Amino acid sequence: MTAEEILQYLEERNYKELKEKLESMHPVDIAQILEEVTEKQVALVFRLLAKEEAAETFSYMNNDMRENLIGALTDSELEEVIEEMYLDDTVDVLEELPANVVDRILMVTDEETRIQINTLLNYPEDSAGSIMNIDYIGFQKDMTVAEGILKIRQVGLNRETIYTCYVTEKRKLIGVVDIKELLTTSENSTMEEIMDTNILYANTHDDKEDVARRINKYGLVAMPIVDNEMCMVGIVTVDDAMLVMQDEATEDISMMAAVTPSEESYFSTSVFQHAKSRSLWLLLLMLSATVTGIILGHYEEAMAVMPELVTFIPMLMGTGGNCGSQSSAVIIRGLAVGEIEFPDILKVVFKEIRIAVVVGIVLSVVNGLRIIIMYQDPMLALALGITMISIVCMAKLIGCTLPLIAKKIGVDPAIMAGPLITTILDTCTILVYFRVVTMIYHL
Amino acid sequence: MTAEEILQYLEERNYKELKEKLESMHPVDIAQILEEVTEKQVALVFRLLAKEEAAETFSYMNNDMRENLIGALTDSELEEVIEEMYLDDTVDVLEELPANVVDRILMVTDEETRIQINTLLNYPEDSAGSIMNIDYIGFQKDMTVAEGILKIRQVGLNRETIYTCYVTEKRKLIGVVDIKELLTTSENSTMEEIMDTNILYANTHDDKEDVARRINKYGLVAMPIVDNEMCMVGIVTVDDAMLVMQDEATEDISMMAAVTPSEESYFSTSVFQHAKSRSLWLLLLMLSATVTGIILGHYEEAMAVMPELVTFIPMLMGTGGNCGSQSSAVIIRGLAVGEIEFPDILKVVFKEIRIAVVVGIVLSVVNGLRIIIMYQDPMLALALGITMISIVCMAKLIGCTLPLIAKKIGVDPAIMAGPLITTILDTCTILVYFRVVTMIYHL
Repeated sequence: MTAEEILQYLEERNYKELKEKLESMHPVDIAQILEEVTEKQVALVFRLLAKEEAAETFSYMNNDMRENLIGALTDSELEEVIEEMYLDDTVDVLEELPANVVDRILMVTDEETRIQINTLLNYPEDSAGSIMNIDYIGFQKDMTVAEGILKIRQVGLNRETIYTCYVTEKRKLIGVVDIKELLTTSENSTMEEIMDTNILYANTHDDKEDVARRINKYGLVAMPIVDNEMCMVGIVTVDDAMLVMQDEATEDISMMAAVTPSEESYFSTSVFQHAKSRSLWLLLLMLSATVTGIILGHYEEAMAVMPELVTFIPMLMGTGGNCGSQSSAVIIRGLAVGEIEFPDILKVVFKEIRIAVVVGIVLSVVNGLRIIIMYQDPMLALALGITMISIVCMAKLIGCTLPLIAKKIGVDPAIMAGPLITTILDTCTILVYFRVVTMIYHL
Repeated sequence: MTAEEILQYLEERNYKELKEKLESMHPVDIAQILEEVTEKQVALVFRLLAKEEAAETFSYMNNDMRENLIGALTDSELEEVIEEMYLDDTVDVLEELPANVVDRILMVTDEETRIQINTLLNYPEDSAGSIMNIDYIGFQKDMTVAEGILKIRQVGLNRETIYTCYVTEKRKLIGVVDIKELLTTSENSTMEEIMDTNILYANTHDDKEDVARRINKYGLVAMPIVDNEMCMVGIVTVDDAMLVMQDEATEDISMMAAVTPSEESYFSTSVFQHAKSRSLWLLLLMLSATVTGIILGHYEEAMAVMPELVTFIPMLMGTGGNCGSQSSAVIIRGLAVGEIEFPDILKVVFKEIRIAVVVGIVLSVVNGLRIIIMYQDPMLALALGITMISIVCMAKLIGCTLPLIAKKIGVDPAIMAGPLITTILDTCTILVYFRVVTMIYHL
């Protein structure tokens, strides 16, 4: 269904048919379509949704829509929505709303939930705790499979996932039981007998990106989260892990292009916000580039004697920047997916230098041929060849080491990407270039 | 356990303890550690693993290791491994092995499996069919919940996932039943009563990245895959979707840094392979940059009159390139995660132009102040200001439209990123810069 069709139904006041249509839609899609109708219409459509769908649709809305909708709902309607939502989604919503709206939501929730919400809100922003869900199925080790299945029957509907269940002893996590295990073994076995004790788990304070990466690496549907005493406190599910990984890649790509990352989508970010997140880096890079300009100014005389020297600057600076960007991008991504780590630095440098030599020779030969054809000047081809190989080696070296060093000192490696590397390399390129030509031509 | 410890056990011939240690490890980790021991030792350790673990470890190995290991295994050992593997993993393995090894594997598999493997191998490389698994739980619509659970008991162990089950009628997919539904409704209900008929599914020929994106969007654990007649042929599970999304992000980051993407990891790619995947783009960009150089050569006279002009070139080219990279990166990522689509092009252009004006003014003012302080020349500040705003607008315009156009004509938008955009913008920057200064200074 499209936004136009919804508008059509609303205009015709054909709520019955609209309701039926909505029932066959996924909440993600409903939330997306509602972005295109007015605030009043959002509330109208929202009230047509079944309780569960309404709560899920709410959790998929963007921040502005949520805030407007909350303003339009009565306290009891709001209470119903919050009651139906999974706790981790509620916490996500609360984290992004202004204080007065948060207060109103907390007012309509019961005390137990409020305490749980506050606990979750207290976990650091990027921690596993901040994205975990506390609704999971827990078993005691002496429960039988039949008792376990019975428990799922009783409480399963209120749990986000029943695919994996967790066995605890005095709240401590001691084993994991997959629902497959539960359904394919004898009903009289105890949890202790069938549980897997090689548990892959994470701590509430672990970085959420690490948790997502491990869920991906081991192909899990959920990872149990424990506190410092190994007590089970929640789970992070694979759907949340996927979102974390996607956001991480988006963040890296932004930073690698010198854009301060933002959590909002492109269209919901204002022009000034966009301008701000781009200007900071641009200003810094612009001022650094003036250094290159000043150095270039020192070689005015050389350029006066050989005016063609200036025509090679764009090519040399471009090639240096591109070579550096290539190496840094490859290393940044390798670090992000866990393929490369800091201790590999020597291996990486050795590899990059060898790559640089090969690449440098290829580029120098092609460029040398062009120079000889266009200028009939082998000396110039030699000078540019030496410059080119030196620049490529320098570019690859700087491009591969800076991200590794950043990682080591706890800075996001994605900063050390194209734009910054290029700006650094521009200076180096000019220095090397004029050093080589002044030497060869005795300028 | 580390590779050193494994070597220690092997040296002491303490196989019993090594075996116990291996049992407590996840196959992903075993495969990773085995990368560090010799070929012979790999085979030795591999034989200590239980059947299931061995098969899983095998599926996580890199290509070279697999090939070596297959060479060391007897036919019956190989048969056991292949029998234990899920069919989608077997197909993945086969796709990357040389023909003679593939033949050996196909020889030890039974005919039915061989036919299934061949069907899967025939799907196009980037299609949903190529990553799907054909082992799923299927129900008939008149089966009761009790019968369904019984079926899972009987066949569940051989299925990769039992979390969602699929209801078919004459092989056509008509509904989906989540295991949660199955366990929380009356045992006498029929599948038809409890199944969800709003099915999210994909076609075998759909792009695997689209399927992964939809699994992510809707938070699914698996998506059913149908053929053109809506007949159910397999499922794509969330763990495979996560890998597809991760590979896609890696590929985009590579391409955005002008590196031809490769499926192999950094360290397992040879120096020449690396050099090759980087040289192609570098050569192209280097030759394009000479155009900028030639244009620059045309303004030799202007530079002879005002030698300081050359000192601003790095800053202007750098800023233009960075602005363009920013816009293209934001749009490329927006396209990748489905936030922006081609029909949004006018909205995007309008937004980027407004951002450009704000950014351009900020940069011009800061740069103008610097010029006035350093050179006491307001005219120069004005000339650079006009140039700067024009360049920023041009950069944002080119940076945002090229990826959208690429998407529209079926080219990967990630090509239209930093390096290419920068090279194009370098030429534009030189043209605009000298047009502006020659006009203002009547050169």
